[in-house]
Amino acid sequence: MYVFDFDTGDGTDKDLLGGKGAGLATMTQIGLPVPPGFTLSTEACRRYLHDGEFSDELWEEVRAAGRLLEEKTGRSFGGSPPLLLSVRSGAKFSMPGMMDTVLNLGMNDAVWESLRDWSGDPHFAWDAYRRFVQTFGKVVLGIEGVEFERVLTELRGSRRVDNDAELTVEDLEAATRRFQQVVADHGTEIPEAPLDQLRRAVTAVFASWDNRRAKEYRRLNDIPDDLGTACNVQMMVFGDLDDASGTGVCFTRDPSTGEAVPYGDYLPNAQGEDVVAGIRRTLTLDDLATRHPGHHASLAGVMKTLEGHYRDMCDIEFTIERERLWILQTRVGKRTAPAAVRIAVEMVSEGLIGRETAVRRIDPAALEQILHPRIDEEHAGDPIAVGLAASPGAACGVAVFDADTAVERSAAGDPVILVRWETNPDDIHGLAAAEGVLTSHGGKTSHAAVVARGMGKPAVTGTDRMHVEEDERRFTIGDLVIAEGDVITIDGGSGKVFVGECPVTEPDPSPELEVLLGWADDIRRLGVWANADTGPDATHARSLGAEGVGLARTEHMFMGDRLPIVRRIILEADDADTAIEELSKLQTEDFESLLESMDGLPVVIRLLDPPLHEFLPDRLDLAIERERAAARGDDTTDMDEMLRAVARWSESNPMLGLRGVRLGFVRPELYRAQVQAAVEAVRRRVAAGGDPHLEIMIPLVATGHEMDKMAATVREIVDAADPGANIKVGTMIEIPRAALRAGDIARSAEFFSFGTNDLTQMTYGFSRDDAEGKFLPAYVSEGILAESPFEKLDVLGVGRLVEVAVKEGKETRPDLVAGICGEHGGDPRSIAFFHRVGLDYVSCSPPRVPIARLAAAQASLGEVDRSTV
Amino acid sequence: MYVFDFDTGDGTDKDLLGGKGAGLATMTQIGLPVPPGFTLSTEACRRYLHDGEFSDELWEEVRAAGRLLEEKTGRSFGGSPPLLLSVRSGAKFSMPGMMDTVLNLGMNDAVWESLRDWSGDPHFAWDAYRRFVQTFGKVVLGIEGVEFERVLTELRGSRRVDNDAELTVEDLEAATRRFQQVVADHGTEIPEAPLDQLRRAVTAVFASWDNRRAKEYRRLNDIPDDLGTACNVQMMVFGDLDDASGTGVCFTRDPSTGEAVPYGDYLPNAQGEDVVAGIRRTLTLDDLATRHPGHHASLAGVMKTLEGHYRDMCDIEFTIERERLWILQTRVGKRTAPAAVRIAVEMVSEGLIGRETAVRRIDPAALEQILHPRIDEEHAGDPIAVGLAASPGAACGVAVFDADTAVERSAAGDPVILVRWETNPDDIHGLAAAEGVLTSHGGKTSHAAVVARGMGKPAVTGTDRMHVEEDERRFTIGDLVIAEGDVITIDGGSGKVFVGECPVTEPDPSPELEVLLGWADDIRRLGVWANADTGPDATHARSLGAEGVGLARTEHMFMGDRLPIVRRIILEADDADTAIEELSKLQTEDFESLLESMDGLPVVIRLLDPPLHEFLPDRLDLAIERERAAARGDDTTDMDEMLRAVARWSESNPMLGLRGVRLGFVRPELYRAQVQAAVEAVRRRVAAGGDPHLEIMIPLVATGHEMDKMAATVREIVDAADPGANIKVGTMIEIPRAALRAGDIARSAEFFSFGTNDLTQMTYGFSRDDAEGKFLPAYVSEGILAESPFEKLDVLGVGRLVEVAVKEGKETRPDLVAGICGEHGGDPRSIAFFHRVGLDYVSCSPPRVPIARLAAAQASLGEVDRSTV
Repeated sequence: MYVFDFDTGDGTDKDLLGGKGAGLATMTQIGLPVPPGFTLSTEACRRYLHDGEFSDELWEEVRAAGRLLEEKTGRSFGGSPPLLLSVRSGAKFSMPGMMDTVLNLGMNDAVWESLRDWSGDPHFAWDAYRRFVQTFGKVVLGIEGVEFERVLTELRGSRRVDNDAELTVEDLEAATRRFQQVVADHGTEIPEAPLDQLRRAVTAVFASWDNRRAKEYRRLNDIPDDLGTACNVQMMVFGDLDDASGTGVCFTRDPSTGEAVPYGDYLPNAQGEDVVAGIRRTLTLDDLATRHPGHHASLAGVMKTLEGHYRDMCDIEFTIERERLWILQTRVGKRTAPAAVRIAVEMVSEGLIGRETAVRRIDPAALEQILHPRIDEEHAGDPIAVGLAASPGAACGVAVFDADTAVERSAAGDPVILVRWETNPDDIHGLAAAEGVLTSHGGKTSHAAVVARGMGKPAVTGTDRMHVEEDERRFTIGDLVIAEGDVITIDGGSGKVFVGECPVTEPDPSPELEVLLGWADDIRRLGVWANADTGPDATHARSLGAEGVGLARTEHMFMGDRLPIVRRIILEADDADTAIEELSKLQTEDFESLLESMDGLPVVIRLLDPPLHEFLPDRLDLAIERERAAARGDDTTDMDEMLRAVARWSESNPMLGLRGVRLGFVRPELYRAQVQAAVEAVRRRVAAGGDPHLEIMIPLVATGHEMDKMAATVREIVDAADPGANIKVGTMIEIPRAALRAGDIARSAEFFSFGTNDLTQMTYGFSRDDAEGKFLPAYVSEGILAESPFEKLDVLGVGRLVEVAVKEGKETRPDLVAGICGEHGGDPRSIAFFHRVGLDYVSCSPPRVPIARLAAAQASLGEVDRSTV
Repeated sequence: MYVFDFDTGDGTDKDLLGGKGAGLATMTQIGLPVPPGFTLSTEACRRYLHDGEFSDELWEEVRAAGRLLEEKTGRSFGGSPPLLLSVRSGAKFSMPGMMDTVLNLGMNDAVWESLRDWSGDPHFAWDAYRRFVQTFGKVVLGIEGVEFERVLTELRGSRRVDNDAELTVEDLEAATRRFQQVVADHGTEIPEAPLDQLRRAVTAVFASWDNRRAKEYRRLNDIPDDLGTACNVQMMVFGDLDDASGTGVCFTRDPSTGEAVPYGDYLPNAQGEDVVAGIRRTLTLDDLATRHPGHHASLAGVMKTLEGHYRDMCDIEFTIERERLWILQTRVGKRTAPAAVRIAVEMVSEGLIGRETAVRRIDPAALEQILHPRIDEEHAGDPIAVGLAASPGAACGVAVFDADTAVERSAAGDPVILVRWETNPDDIHGLAAAEGVLTSHGGKTSHAAVVARGMGKPAVTGTDRMHVEEDERRFTIGDLVIAEGDVITIDGGSGKVFVGECPVTEPDPSPELEVLLGWADDIRRLGVWANADTGPDATHARSLGAEGVGLARTEHMFMGDRLPIVRRIILEADDADTAIEELSKLQTEDFESLLESMDGLPVVIRLLDPPLHEFLPDRLDLAIERERAAARGDDTTDMDEMLRAVARWSESNPMLGLRGVRLGFVRPELYRAQVQAAVEAVRRRVAAGGDPHLEIMIPLVATGHEMDKMAATVREIVDAADPGANIKVGTMIEIPRAALRAGDIARSAEFFSFGTNDLTQMTYGFSRDDAEGKFLPAYVSEGILAESPFEKLDVLGVGRLVEVAVKEGKETRPDLVAGICGEHGGDPRSIAFFHRVGLDYVSCSPPRVPIARLAAAQASLGEVDRSTV
C-alpha cells in the first residue's frame, strides 16, 4: 500500500508519511479543519526512484484515493464544482523550499469555467489558471521561472501598475495565454486531462528529492540520501478568493523569546506563496482578531489543541476561504535558543512535558547563542574579511599591534583588539588585556586560538587575506588600511571581521537555563570538567558548573614575564639551577591557586608538553635580525649564541619531536621541578585547611615502558617530598600507539585522559595548523570529508582507537578513570560517543561547560529526536 | 629433581640443562671421553633466585651426586687421591664470558698434599692451589682480580721472570699464602671444607645470572631474563700437569671460510684459561698431529662423531692429561657469514642436512657481510667520528663539498665522497657520481640516506660532531680539519668515518650463496620486490632476484636538472602549462625505462608524495641571502617573490601537511600529468612488443572517500587516454586511520602497499628525523625502547594496525594484493611478521633483495632455531 488517506494514515509514522503528511493525518483525525486529501508514501517515492517509473499499482491507488476525495468534497476533478488540488512534497525531516510544490492542479479551459461559476469571479479564476500554468511550467516542465516573470513584468509595465492584483481580468487571461505560449515555445505542453497533470506533478515531486540543492541540503544537515519524500495531494482552498479570505502562518508561542503568547502573520486575499514572497505587508494576529474575531478564536482553539497534542510549540499554516478556517500544515516550530530554553522549562511547569523531554529538546550547540555575545548581523555592514572562527564571542575595540600597547591602552580605558601575524608566548599579557585577538596566520589550534579559548575571549585566526605590518602598526586588506587606534569588531563565532563598531547582541543566560542545566545534571552520567590554566579560569569554570579541572597546561605558566627564566633553563645558562628553583616556586603558587579554586574537586596538571623551541625566539626572525645587526656593524655574539641554541632545538616536525614525556627523559630537571612544585602546593593547601585533589598527567606517552619509568620517577619524587601526599599519576592518550597499547600503559597509569586533538592529528596524519590553512576547507567543501575531524570526533577512525583504549585500559585496571580533555570534550555530538564508550568525564574550555552538561544529559537519555532540534 | 648426572641427563633438553650441560650429557652418552660430573638444572637456579636461598632438597641431591662422582672416579673429594672439581655456568643460550666459573675446587692444605702425592709435582700442586684461591676470591668472594694480579706481578718482578711457569715452587707457595692474606685482609675467608666451597661456588654461579653485564648481554641479544643458568660440576682434568699434557679448542670446519677441514689451537702444559688469555703462542692441530699423533687421531674421530651427531659444525674444548684425551665441552660453532653459507650448502651435498635446514641456518642479517664491502676494522685506525649507519657498505675517496665538484673529480678519475651538511634534490647528480655520502645532519630517512640506499651506495648521516663549512670547502671535528681533496673512508654499515684510505673487505658472494638463495626461493611464499626509482636501479634489483618494483618514487624524477621545470609549475609561472607538458614527457621516459627493465613483472609507481616546498629553496637560507643582497643594495625583487612562494608553501609539520593525495586534490594538474605519462609509457612499451604491468599508487590516503574520488579520477584519465591499458590503481597504507578504515579504502583500491616508515612515525608520534637526532638513541640506550621501531617493525603497535588492515581490506576485496614498501620490507625479523599476517610480498631496497629472499623462506619454515644463528 502506497497511498494513505488523511482520515486513516498513521500520524506518528513520519518515516512513511513524511513530516507534513503525518501532521495532516494527525490533525484530520483529532478533528481539526484540514482540507481532505491523501499522502503518497516515502516508500512510493523510493520505489519510483529505484524503478525510474511509476508503477500501475501505485497509480491505481492514487485514482481510488482521488475518487474518494471527490466523494468527500462533493466536487469533481476536471468537472463542476471543480476540485483543484495542491501537490506538495514532505520528507521525514523538514527541508524547507528544497523540493517542489504544484498548486491549483486540475486546471484547463473547461475547468476555468467551472471555477468562474463556483467563485462567481473571473478575475480570481484567471489568476488561479495563470498561477497553475506558471508553477506547472516551472516545476514539472523545468522552464526557467524568469520567462514567466518577464511576461508579468511587461504586462504590469504596459498597464502602469505595480501589483498583479491591479491587473484586469483581460490582463490575467492574456497572461495565462502567454504563459501557455511560453510552454509551447519550449516544444512541450501541459496535459489537458487533470489526471495526467496529477501524474506528472507527483513524478516531479518525487524526482525533486534528488535535485542538486536538496542533495546539498541533506549533506549539510546530515540527512540520509535514501529516505525519499512523501507527496501530499490535497483539496485546494483559496485564501485569494476575496477580501474576506486570506492566509497566514502562526506559532503557538513567540519563537524568538519563547513567551507563551501566540505569534503570527496574516495576509488577506492571498495564497501562501504571497506571504512567503514578502511583497505585501502582513497583518498581525491582533489585526485578525479585530477583523475576524470568530476565525481568531477558532485559530486560538486549534493552537491550544495542537500544543496539547504535540506537547511542543507548533508552527501552523492556515487559510481562510470566505467564512471557513482551514489548517493546511503544522509542524514543531523553529525557535531561537533562548526561546527553546524558556519554552521547555515553562512547558514542564505547565505539566505539558517532563524534565527529560525538556532536556532532550535543547540543541546544546545552540547554547552558544545564549552564552556568547554575537554580532547582530542584520545591522552590521559587510565584513572586511573572514578568518577562522577560533574562539566564539564578539568583541569590539581599537586595533593594536603589540602586547605592550594592548596593556597600555587597555589600562587607559580603551577596549582593544590585539592584531598580530600570529601570537606567541611573549604576547600573553597582551592577550590578557585585550577584548579579543585577530591574527592573519595560524589555525584553530594556533597559540592565539588556544589561549583565547582558555580565557573565554573571542578570537579570529588565519585571516589570510589580511596583511599585518607590525612595524608599520597597521594591517591592510587589499587597498583598505586599518591603522593602530582604528576601531574594529570581530566575531569569533563566525570568523567575521568588521570595520568600526558593530551592534553586538549581549549574552543573556536566563534563569530558565539554570533550571534546565540543573535537570541535566540530575540526568547525566558523564562528569563535566574544564580545561583551565589559572585559578581565575578555574573559578570561572566552577561557576559554570565544572566538577574538576581536566587539563591545566603547565607550559602556559612558563610564558610572559617568566620566559627569561625558562630560557635560562633551556639554554643551560650558568645559573640554570637557580632559574629552575625560581620557576618551581612560581609554579607552586600557580598550582596552589588552581587547587584553591577547585577545592574538594580534582585538578589534573599536565607536565610540560611542547617542544622547548616554543619558548625561544623564532628562528627566521632572529636570523634576519642578526643579518641586519651585522650589516650595521653591531656585535652579534649574543644573537649568534641564541641562533645556535634555536637551531639545536629546532625540528622538522615539532609535533612529533622532542616534547612531552620525551623531554621529561632528556631534561629530567624540568619534570622534577614541576612535580616538586605540585607536592609543595598540595602541602600548603592541606596546611591551610583545604582539600586538594591533585593529579599529575604525563603527556605524549607511546609505550607501557615509558609510562612505567616516568610514573615511577614521579612517584619517587612525590614520596621523597611528602610520602603521604594524595596525588594520582596518569597519562594522556594522544598517540595512536598509546591507544593500541593502552593495556600496557594502564599498568602504571591511574587515569587516562584522551587528548583527541593530537590523537586526531596523528591518526589522520593531519597537522591541524597546516591542514586548516591549506586543504581542509577544500576537503569539506568538495565533500571528501563531511566535516573537519577537529570539530566533531571522527568516530570511525579516532573513535575506534578511543574505544579500544578504554576497553583494554580497564581490562588491565578496572578502576581506571578515563576522561577526555581534547576540544571534542565540548562538542555535543562527540560527547554522545564518549558517553557510549564508557568514559567517566569530559573536560572542555570553561565557556563550553554548560553545553557539555546538557549534551552529557542527552547522551544519557539516548538518541535525541532530531525533528525537535 | 634438580640434579642430573651426565650419564642420565636428557642431552636434547637445553631448557633444563643449559647448552653446556646438554652437550656434556650428549657426549657422555654417545661414548666420548668426558670427565664425569653432573648438572644442577636451570630450574634449580630459578628456584634459588626466587627463594634467595639454597633449598635443603637441592643440597641433598648435590651431595648424592657428589658421592656417586667419587665412586665413579675412584677419587675422594677432600681426600686422596683428590677429586677436584670445575664448577661452570651454562645457560640455554651461549653468553660467553658473562657468567662465572670456579676451577680446582675442593682445595685446602690437606688436599694440597694429596694432589702433590698424586701428581708427584709440588710445583703443579702449588700452582693449582694458588689458581683456586685466586678464582674463588674473585668469583665467589667478589675481590677485585687486580689485587691478586699485583701479587704475581711483584713476585715476577722480584724474581726477574716474565712467566708464571718460571716461578719456583717456593714462589708459588708464597703466592698462594699471600693470596690467602689478600682474602683475609678483606675480612673474609675461603671455607676449609670442600663441600662448603662447592655450595658457595654454585651459589655464585647462580647469582651471576643477574650480574650487570649478563643482563646487558641479554638485553642486547633479546634473551629472556627469566631463564636462569644451569651449573655444571665436573671432575677437574689437568692440561697443566706436565709437558705431555695440554689443552685446546678446535672447530670441525674452518669457521672463517667454511672449508671442510678441522681448525684449532693447542697449548701444551696449560689450563683452558691460559689459551683464552692469549699470552703464550698456541700450536696448530698439525703441530698436535706431529707431537701426539694418537691424540690427534682420537680428536679427529671425536670431531667426526660430533658433526655426525649434531649435523653442524662444532666447536670443541679438549684437554690432554698425560696420556689421556678428554672432551670438556662442545657446542655448535660460531662462524662468519660466508663460512655459514658454504658449510650449509656443503652439508646438504654431504647428505648431513636437508635444504630446509640449510636455509634455516643462515642469519639473513649476516648476509650484509657478504653483500657489501666493509672496513677491515682490525687494520683500520680509530674512527674520527661516528654517525648514523644510513646505507651499508664501505667507500673511500677524496672529500668534496658540492655536487658539481663531485661530478668533475669523479670524471677525472678520482673516487669521491660527497660531504654535505645535508643533501637536497639539487645534489642528486653529485650523489650519482660519488662512491658514498657523508652528512653532518639528518637521520636515516634524510634525503641523503634514502637516495643512497636506493642507489646501493654507502652513506653515513647525522654525524653531528662534524662541522661542515661548505663555503670554506672543508669540515672540522674538534681541531681536526679535513679539506677538499683529503682522502677519507666511510663505513655505512657501522657509521664510522676514518681519515685516509682504510683496508676494505670486498664483498664476495660465493656460488654457494646463489645455490642457497635458489633453495630459499623454492620455499618462500612471500614475493620479494624492490624499491627502485630508475631503470638501472630496477635492472640491478632484478639481477639480485627482485620480482617486481614495489615502489618507484616519482618525485625523485623531479630533481636535478628538472628542478627548474618543477619550480615553474609550483610557482604557477605564466608558462606553467608548458612546464607540465615538459615534465610529463620526461616522466614518460622514466616510466618507460622502468617498465623495460621489469618487463613482464609489476612496477608500482607512486604519484607525487612530498610537500611542494621540498622542491623550493630553503626558507632560512633564502631569507639570509635576501638580507645580504639588500645590504649590498642589490635588487631583491625576484628573491622577495620566491620568499613569498616559499612562505606560502612552508608548513609547521610538513610530514602531516599538504602532500600525497591531498596535493593531488589541491593541484590536480600534477597527478594528471603523471598518470598521462604512465599511460603513454605503457602504450609505448606495448608498441615495442613489451609486457608492461604498471600499477599506480596513491599516497597518504586516510579515508575511503579520498580513495574513491582519486581512484575514479585516475581511472578516468587512464580511460580517456587508453581505455584498454592494463593499469591497476591502489594505495599506500601509511596513515593510522587508513589502516583502521582499510575496509572502506579497499572499495576502490586494487592493492595496498604498507608504507611502514610513515605508519611508524604517525603511530608512534615520532618524526624520524627529529627522533633519531634528539631522543631515540637515549631511549634505546636507557632501555625505554628495546630497539628503534624504524629498524624492526613494532609488531605490538604498528603491527596491530597492519594486521587489522590486511584482514579488513581482504574482507572487502578478497583478491586485494597487499605488500609492504617501507624499509621494514628488508628487515628479516619484520619479514617473519609480514609473512604471518598474510601479506603477498615485501619490497625493499635492491641490495636487501637477497636478504629478504632468505628471510621470507625462513618465515615460511616457521621459527628459526636460535641456537644455530
